[in-house]
Amino acid sequence: MRPIKIGLFGLGVVGSGIVEIIGRARNAHAEIRRICVRDITKKRAVEVDPALLTDNAADIFGDPSINLIVEVVDNPDASYRIVTEALRRGIPVVSGSKAMIARHLPELIELQRRHNTALLYDASACGSIPVIRNLEEYYDNDLLLEVKGILNGSSNYILSRVFDHGEDYGAALRKAQELGFAESDPTFDIEGFDSLFKLIIITVHALGVYVAPDSIFTYGISTIHDSDIRYAREKRVKIKLVAQVVKVSDERFTMFVMPEFVSPSKYIYSVDDEYNGVVIRGECYDRQFMFGKGAGSLPTASSILSDVMARLHGYRYEYKKMGFAGRPAFTEDVPLRVYVRYGATAGVRDLPWLAVREQYFSESGNYIIGDIRLADLHASRPLLSAQDVFLAHIPLFFTDRDN
Amino acid sequence: MRPIKIGLFGLGVVGSGIVEIIGRARNAHAEIRRICVRDITKKRAVEVDPALLTDNAADIFGDPSINLIVEVVDNPDASYRIVTEALRRGIPVVSGSKAMIARHLPELIELQRRHNTALLYDASACGSIPVIRNLEEYYDNDLLLEVKGILNGSSNYILSRVFDHGEDYGAALRKAQELGFAESDPTFDIEGFDSLFKLIIITVHALGVYVAPDSIFTYGISTIHDSDIRYAREKRVKIKLVAQVVKVSDERFTMFVMPEFVSPSKYIYSVDDEYNGVVIRGECYDRQFMFGKGAGSLPTASSILSDVMARLHGYRYEYKKMGFAGRPAFTEDVPLRVYVRYGATAGVRDLPWLAVREQYFSESGNYIIGDIRLADLHASRPLLSAQDVFLAHIPLFFTDRDN
Repeated sequence: MRPIKIGLFGLGVVGSGIVEIIGRARNAHAEIRRICVRDITKKRAVEVDPALLTDNAADIFGDPSINLIVEVVDNPDASYRIVTEALRRGIPVVSGSKAMIARHLPELIELQRRHNTALLYDASACGSIPVIRNLEEYYDNDLLLEVKGILNGSSNYILSRVFDHGEDYGAALRKAQELGFAESDPTFDIEGFDSLFKLIIITVHALGVYVAPDSIFTYGISTIHDSDIRYAREKRVKIKLVAQVVKVSDERFTMFVMPEFVSPSKYIYSVDDEYNGVVIRGECYDRQFMFGKGAGSLPTASSILSDVMARLHGYRYEYKKMGFAGRPAFTEDVPLRVYVRYGATAGVRDLPWLAVREQYFSESGNYIIGDIRLADLHASRPLLSAQDVFLAHIPLFFTDRDN
Repeated sequence: MRPIKIGLFGLGVVGSGIVEIIGRARNAHAEIRRICVRDITKKRAVEVDPALLTDNAADIFGDPSINLIVEVVDNPDASYRIVTEALRRGIPVVSGSKAMIARHLPELIELQRRHNTALLYDASACGSIPVIRNLEEYYDNDLLLEVKGILNGSSNYILSRVFDHGEDYGAALRKAQELGFAESDPTFDIEGFDSLFKLIIITVHALGVYVAPDSIFTYGISTIHDSDIRYAREKRVKIKLVAQVVKVSDERFTMFVMPEFVSPSKYIYSVDDEYNGVVIRGECYDRQFMFGKGAGSLPTASSILSDVMARLHGYRYEYKKMGFAGRPAFTEDVPLRVYVRYGATAGVRDLPWLAVREQYFSESGNYIIGDIRLADLHASRPLLSAQDVFLAHIPLFFTDRDN
């Protein structure tokens, strides 16, 4: 068991947490040898020996004593360069950059194979909840039917503030940013992309299939309106931003990110504030629910520490399910029931509805509840992006009972 | 990757589930070669090729093609003989016998080391929830502070029926047995021993310390009375049978199994029926909650399948934390707040209370709420076992906020 000597890239919110946590974990056998930052003169949230700091990546890549690179920089391009460079040199990497990983996962898997090294990224999906590792190691058979959850702490925090505390959306967003829950580009959180990236990574480990971000329907919460909240309250449901991957038959699965009306009987109903919650459904164990802090410096850093410790024992993802026979294929040819609220935007009524269940018109706004194919919803994405339109999923078709 | 050829001991509730699940998991690369049962003529819940059945253990131990033994017999002594025999022969074993494992774990760890083989038992604690593997692999550092949960599906089912549905205790117990949740000896479930055995196993993987069953205070639900349920309802709490291991300082931890008044803000409040729920608390990630089916044929069998699949990749528990520096020591020198309801039994008032907070006397029964050292409670165990006494923990000292 060789002690871990870490070269750390990035000393922001998560990087500072890593420095603090590695200091606390007495039995971790891990030590930070060098920290690469953009600006070595910048004031940091955590006390660090100045001799550890460098702004030259070569000081890490060229240090033969470093046997693990941990990368938590807040820039997908830089993250891509660091991770691929490390893998090519055969140095194992722990990364928290879900955007980068979700875009480049097939190449990153290939690089790990070719250079016989490891990339771990449990921290990239759901902060402190060990979703990836459990999907890879524990739910490592073909009994899995569905993974569904609240994967973004920041948007969930905002929805909780707006929904449960009657706060203003903008004020809630600012508070999320102050608390360090929000990505530096908040559209990532709010428009559902952060959830999407995590869902893509989860799907690789859940079903063994990679689907590129552009192929997946993603709808966020930025156009949510008082009337949507009022409607949901009247129906005694909450609106949550939910990501899901579901097997719709033995041969096919679908996935999407969408606000959802969540009834009190569902596990994810009680996932509030910055928490994440994931439901894993399988053929024999029914539903399992995992719940924990999905954002913030120390929760994310503690997840990074788990990846670091896993390297002590040479752990790597095997991507077992990618080799499974009869892997299901991605489809958007599935019916969904949705609520679409709109104002002046024409065209919502002319969507290719399979069935319209309810229509409501008023001076202050209108809505339709109806059934529509996910593929048709996806094709109508520009229309749905109008500022006066809000879309929410009403779960119905996939679930015969509570989840 | 060598396909797994299983020798199965036991074809009861769980064994039948294993046969069914292995048949369904197409990519498991696992096959059952032989099944050893007490009575090969007995009618089974699952259809099995009669040629697989044997009543002679030597047919499994002597078959060189068998590379994994799965043991789900319902008898701790037989289980001990099978597991130790397999380990001595260097054959890896998956076992679901928590009573046996909790009693013999130090010897079983030593046997694994000496014969360089593996014993996996994730199925033994919390059915389908991957608690052991996560404590061992993911929470594998010294930031862990507490593991607390509802570990027994059967007693939880009974409490749910009695508490939420106003059913009679005896009727609820019979229903639990009919549904296959209860152990064949129901006192295991109801007196807290099943929870205790799981807690002992969890503690080895949580803190790296083994504590023998006889040293741990264990109190069940068999003496619960209408008046206790009425009292809890008035206070808007539920009574749950809770097992917990808690670090009370850097150097010391305590553990016990006891009914507990659980308030609605706690994660485990909503763990009802045969479900299990576990809260893992750490220094940096705060609280994580895992929830799933803790009893029943298929959920337990799916957990066994995860252990079987882990053997495909040569997985074994490393018992890392047993080698940690500064492991905490077990103590019962901690104050607890408890509710003790009693009828004619004298002596409850004379317990060595640190402080009495409330006393209530009535024609139909009495109770005291007060603070007492766990060691003193343990020393008074015979008194507390009287048929007219019921004890419940009021959590207070360990938790500064919700869990």
